[in-house]
Parts: sequence; C-alpha cells; structure tokens
Amino acid sequence: MSVKQLVINDQRLLNDFKALTEIGETIDGGVNRLALSNEDLQARAWFADQVDAAGLMMRDDDVGNLSGVLFSDNPNAQTMMIGSHMDTVPNGGRYDGAIGVLGGLECLRTIKEQGIKLPFHLEVIDFTDEEGAWQSLFGSKGLVGKIHTHETDAETDYGPFRAALFRAGIRPVDIHKAKRDPKTVCGYLELHIEQGPRLDREKIDIGIVNGIVGRLNYEIVFRGEASHSGTTERDRRKDALLGAATFITQAHQLWHTHYPTGIFNCGNIQALPGAFNIIPSEAKLKVEIRHEDEATLDIWKDDLLNLIQSQADLHGLGVSSRLVQHTRAVRLSEKMESTIESVCQDFGVSYRYLTSFAGHDAQVMSSFTDTGMIFIPSVNGISHSPHEFTEWEDVVRGTNILLHCILKLGKIK
Amino acid sequence: MSVKQLVINDQRLLNDFKALTEIGETIDGGVNRLALSNEDLQARAWFADQVDAAGLMMRDDDVGNLSGVLFSDNPNAQTMMIGSHMDTVPNGGRYDGAIGVLGGLECLRTIKEQGIKLPFHLEVIDFTDEEGAWQSLFGSKGLVGKIHTHETDAETDYGPFRAALFRAGIRPVDIHKAKRDPKTVCGYLELHIEQGPRLDREKIDIGIVNGIVGRLNYEIVFRGEASHSGTTERDRRKDALLGAATFITQAHQLWHTHYPTGIFNCGNIQALPGAFNIIPSEAKLKVEIRHEDEATLDIWKDDLLNLIQSQADLHGLGVSSRLVQHTRAVRLSEKMESTIESVCQDFGVSYRYLTSFAGHDAQVMSSFTDTGMIFIPSVNGISHSPHEFTEWEDVVRGTNILLHCILKLGKIK
Repeated sequence: MSVKQLVINDQRLLNDFKALTEIGETIDGGVNRLALSNEDLQARAWFADQVDAAGLMMRDDDVGNLSGVLFSDNPNAQTMMIGSHMDTVPNGGRYDGAIGVLGGLECLRTIKEQGIKLPFHLEVIDFTDEEGAWQSLFGSKGLVGKIHTHETDAETDYGPFRAALFRAGIRPVDIHKAKRDPKTVCGYLELHIEQGPRLDREKIDIGIVNGIVGRLNYEIVFRGEASHSGTTERDRRKDALLGAATFITQAHQLWHTHYPTGIFNCGNIQALPGAFNIIPSEAKLKVEIRHEDEATLDIWKDDLLNLIQSQADLHGLGVSSRLVQHTRAVRLSEKMESTIESVCQDFGVSYRYLTSFAGHDAQVMSSFTDTGMIFIPSVNGISHSPHEFTEWEDVVRGTNILLHCILKLGKIK
Repeated sequence: MSVKQLVINDQRLLNDFKALTEIGETIDGGVNRLALSNEDLQARAWFADQVDAAGLMMRDDDVGNLSGVLFSDNPNAQTMMIGSHMDTVPNGGRYDGAIGVLGGLECLRTIKEQGIKLPFHLEVIDFTDEEGAWQSLFGSKGLVGKIHTHETDAETDYGPFRAALFRAGIRPVDIHKAKRDPKTVCGYLELHIEQGPRLDREKIDIGIVNGIVGRLNYEIVFRGEASHSGTTERDRRKDALLGAATFITQAHQLWHTHYPTGIFNCGNIQALPGAFNIIPSEAKLKVEIRHEDEATLDIWKDDLLNLIQSQADLHGLGVSSRLVQHTRAVRLSEKMESTIESVCQDFGVSYRYLTSFAGHDAQVMSSFTDTGMIFIPSVNGISHSPHEFTEWEDVVRGTNILLHCILKLGKIK
C-alpha cells in the first residue's frame, strides 16, 4: 500500500468518540465537561489510558496540558504538535474540541502502526480550559509562556481558580515551568468543527483557516438605587436594569450599523436585589465583541464604552467596565495553509479559505510556531449547544486530511 | 388631664423601635427581616414579650399573625384592629411596617395605663409576610379567608413555602382556621410611612389614604436558542436576552406614553446559560404594573402581553407569561377617612388625601371591615432601601393621630 492510500481507522476513532461523549453527557445529548471539573479530570484519565494503550509516551506539563507523543528516531528532532481541547462550555456539544484531540490521537496511532519514520516527534495535545470556565486558552497560553501566577488569583463563577488548579494537581507557582522553547517546536495543526454555517451551507468539505478574530470581553456593572417600585416617582427612579436594557438594545444597533462583519454578544445579566417591587439597584453584564481586524476592534471598543457611559448618564446611573480578556486577532501560517490546500487538491476534496469567528488554542500557538487550522462542517452552524452536530463522514475526512498534512510536512511519500 | 391632651409615651416607643431595628439590621443601616426567617421569628418572640410585659393578651392564629389585645369590659364587644407588619423586603428599611405595629402597641399601652374603657376590644396585629417573600399579604389574606392550602405548595426563591411555614409552626391544612367572622370586627386602621415623596415634598404632616392601587405581577420567560456567539450568523441568532432587553425598554415607553399615572417595574432578570460566548437561550423577568383604576389596569395588562408577544415574534423567540399575583385596586372607608380628617383638624395637623401606590394589608382588610390608613412622610420618598427614613417627630405625631382616631371611634371624650 502506498502512503498516499493510507487512511485512519475510522471505527477505532468512533469508539473513542463514543467513550469520550459518555463522560459528562447530559440528558438532552449535550456535554458538561467544564475544565478542571470531575468530568474533565475523568476525561483526561481516560485519554491517558488511550495514550498508554497505543504504546505512545504520555506527557503532561505544569498547566495541566496532557499529551501523547510518538518519538522520532532522531532524538534531537523538533516536535510537530497537533490537538485541541476536551473541555466544554456548560451544556455544550460533543464535537467542539473533542474531534481535534481524538482525531490527532488516531493520526499518531495510524502512523505508528504503519512504522512510518517521521523527521519530527509528533505530539497530540489536550489543552487545559480552552473554553474559559476559569481562564480561556489557559493551557495554550501557559505553553507559550503567557500565563503569570497572579492570574490564577481570580474568583470566578465556579469558585476560586487556585482551588480548582490545586485539586487537579496544578501548582500556581509552577506555571512558568510549562513554557516551552519555541526552537523545539516546528508547527501546530488543529482539526476543529467550524461552529458556523458557511461550509455546511456551501456544501464544502474543508475550511482552511487563514485568520482568527480578536476578542474583547468586558464585565459591565450599572449601579442605580434600590427603592420601592410603587412609590418612587418616575423622575426619581435610578433603575439599573432599565439602563442595562437600553444599552443592550443599542449595542446591537451599533453592531448592525457600524460593525456588521464583527460579532457582539451580551451573554449574561444579573440584577439586584431582584424583587417584583424593588427598582433594581445593580445590573451586571457579560459583554463581548469580536472582529478580524484588531484596529477596528479597538475603535469599536471605544464606541461601546462611550455608549455605556451615555446610557448610564441618561438614566442617572453609575457604571464601571472591567476588561476581563483580550485575545488579539491573528493571521495563521501561509506554509500551513498551502500544505492543507495541496492535500485537499491531492484527494479531490472541496475547500475554501475562511476566518474563524471563534477563538482557538491555534490563536495562541500562532505567535509561537507555524500554525494551521482545518475546519470541518457543522450542521446548521450550531455549536456550544446539545444540538451541535457534524456528519461522521466529515469527521473521518477531516482526520484523514490532518493525517496527510502531517505526512506532507514530514516529506513522507 | 382631659382625654384631648392624652399623648403616647414617645420614649417608650423609641426604645421599642431601637430594639426591633436591631433584629436583622445590616451593616449599612438597612434591615433583613424576611417573613418566616430566623430574624422574623426572633422579632415575633420579642413582640410577644412586649405584649406580655404590657399586661395585654397575646393572640396568634393559623397563618402566623401575632396580636396583642386590650379587652373591653363588654365580652360581647366587636374588635377594632390596628397594626401592620414587621417583615421586610431583602435589605429593606427600618420604618416600613414596623411603625404601624409598634405605634399600635404603644396606643394599647397608653389607653390601658389611663384606664380608658373602650366599647370595643382593641387589637394590634403583626400580619405575616406582607412583603411577599413567600406570598405577599399572606397574613391578612388568611385572616379574611382568602388563602387556600394549595397556595402553599409554591417553590419560591427561598425554597419550598410549606417548609418555611412548618418551621414557623404553621400547618397548611389549618390555614382555613385563621378566617375570622367579619361580624366580630368593627374596623381596621393602619399607620404607615408613605414610601413616596408627596407628603415630604409638600411639607404635609399626615396623608389620609382614600385608595390603594391594584397590582399585577407576571413572570415572563423568553426562550431562544443557545449557540456559539462567534460563529452563529446574525440572522440565525435567537437571542432571548435581546428580546427581553427590547421588551423592557419598550414597556417603559408604553408606561410613559399611555399609563403615566400608573407604575411599571421590571424588578429582576435572569439569563441562561450565562457565558460571555454563548447566545442566551432563556431570559426570565419579574414584571409588575400598578394602577388605581382596576379597569385601566386590565387594558394595560393586555397591551403589555401584546408587547411581549410582538417582541418575541420579532426576535424569533418563544415566550410564556405566568400571572403570579393580582391584588385588586380598592377604595378605603369614608367613615375612617372622615375620622382621621376630624382628628387632624382637632389637633391643627396638616393633611391631604392621597392614593397609595404601595400595596398594604389594609387593601385586603378593606373587603372585610371599615378600613383606613394614616400615612406619615418618608424623607425623599425613599423606601425598600437602607436609606428609608422618617423624622422621629413624624412617627410620634402619626402615632398620636392613630391614638385619637381610636378614641374618637370609641366615642371617648
């Protein structure tokens, strides 16, 4: 059999997919596998077992990233990395992240059992907390040396971040040890579902990601005055929820009118004290904007902060905005793009270039090494939902494209 | 000393006020004494002690109302009731409700120590859960026979209502026993802070309440679809929070434009699942409207429900509305109004008639017996807040007006 005809073992991949799905599966077919939760730790233990069973080397680091490595015969070789993440958002889907890790593992197994000699070590990695239950892209940021110990001091919706890290055996003072030397790495490739509708709608098999949007997350708190709703006259009301509601409405209009190629979301709101008959004294919002162009993102941010202030002024409220996270927009590696494109052409698979509107570990890795991303279709573009779905043949096709990208990068013919 | 010169013991009243304030006092000067909470039960025990110490008869009933009674020499006399409630909203004020109970108790003590013979039994009552931590106006509704056992099945923000009742020694199956025979009662008078700014702004001492607004409470749930915020295209978003925000904004406009003499409040909102990067699938709102005219309230309700549906349709959402409570608008007793007015005239105290925009136990009692309400000023109209404040001289003046209304109703000269 020529290398060109090599394909992964799709039944073995399917068995892995079913086994992983069961860890944290919800009654409506979604998955709750929040980073560092019991389910996430269980998934990692399961993954380590698969790495062992495949005769690969298990590797972990000081931010909890977990890898399987297929060593090159050359001990001084660089490492080619592939992977994604096994954590999910609350009640998320089965494919997001999981496919990149499981597909990567299957590529290592396929190459190992064929006895193919790669000129690089090949490592499949599960990055910690890509989704940000605690801090998004934590694992990949740790690997490239962009997490500092003080960033683990945060109190989050799920409790103190440090407590969760300790529980998973990660010591905040050791985080700097996770940083790798970029000279030891020769590239990163991530297979992932698109999470949007473009490939599915256009009936295209493969997306070659050429850029990932930048993202700003803000926590915004409007502050008014709690008072009896029935007896406080209208011109004396300081209604934090009204200010928040008009802000949300107008922020959507700002998006549609001035930044239609970007993304706005207000994902959460909490009001205090929360009774029928009390004017809300506080409304706390989680807001994000995304844009492929970092300069535009910066201008939009200013517009948004001005809107927040003007709505607060209009309704007699105080307001504060806290930047929770800034992930810069990036362009991916042209070398990786052309490798994916030529593999698609070799196999007669349809493809298009596209921008990713979701953040990915590849975004972080792109500052560190040649990075590429392979997208496969999401049915109806639904993601972060129990209804997230990708046809199994698309998963298999994407994994085979990943396999042949590795072989091409290794100049295996 | 003639009866006309009789005044309450304001130092004794002040001591009571300070003692009650300490039960559930918060660090910022507010009070947390939610109905049936530890603090509420502690306040009742303290109140029972004061009733005992004053040589009055302690009385309780099967909905937890707690009374002190000064019996008439005529065992067949009817009962004149006065009082209010000692429970508060979360982080509420010191005066709301408390003044009516403490002022009432002080009137009983003053009349008892003067040896005045009233033609009726005089009862000061603390009604259970006026504020509605579990079910608003629970105690007064129980007394007039308007609570049914199945209404205690509710799951509330504070847990199961039944569990809280059992803990306070109230058995749901016995609630019907709290119903009194209206023939045994000859009136109800409630002293209360205005909770609005009219008396304070106009420098008027006493408000004579001639009506209490009707009130409708709705819980509204907008339902959309959780999806990845970055990758879901704009025309495919089903954003429950956006629908809720535009509803809130437009409901305020509806209020201002068409029902300016009424009250609208959206007191709470909760969004699911609540992450930065997930489009909200659900937004649950607590909404109330109040109006002095029951027919207008009914038309407004229809407008509001239409607005809810149109906003849901516009944003591709499902929606449901649940009526949580309907308290009908009432007119109070002209006999009580003229009694209060003539007492004010006797003592040269300034007064005006006004509508109450807050609900009160008097609203329930008005369907049962001749009912009147005496308002005293609230500084800046602030209520349901730690900043709720009434000048002490206004508390004393109001209690003396209450005392002389009782004497006038008893034809004591």
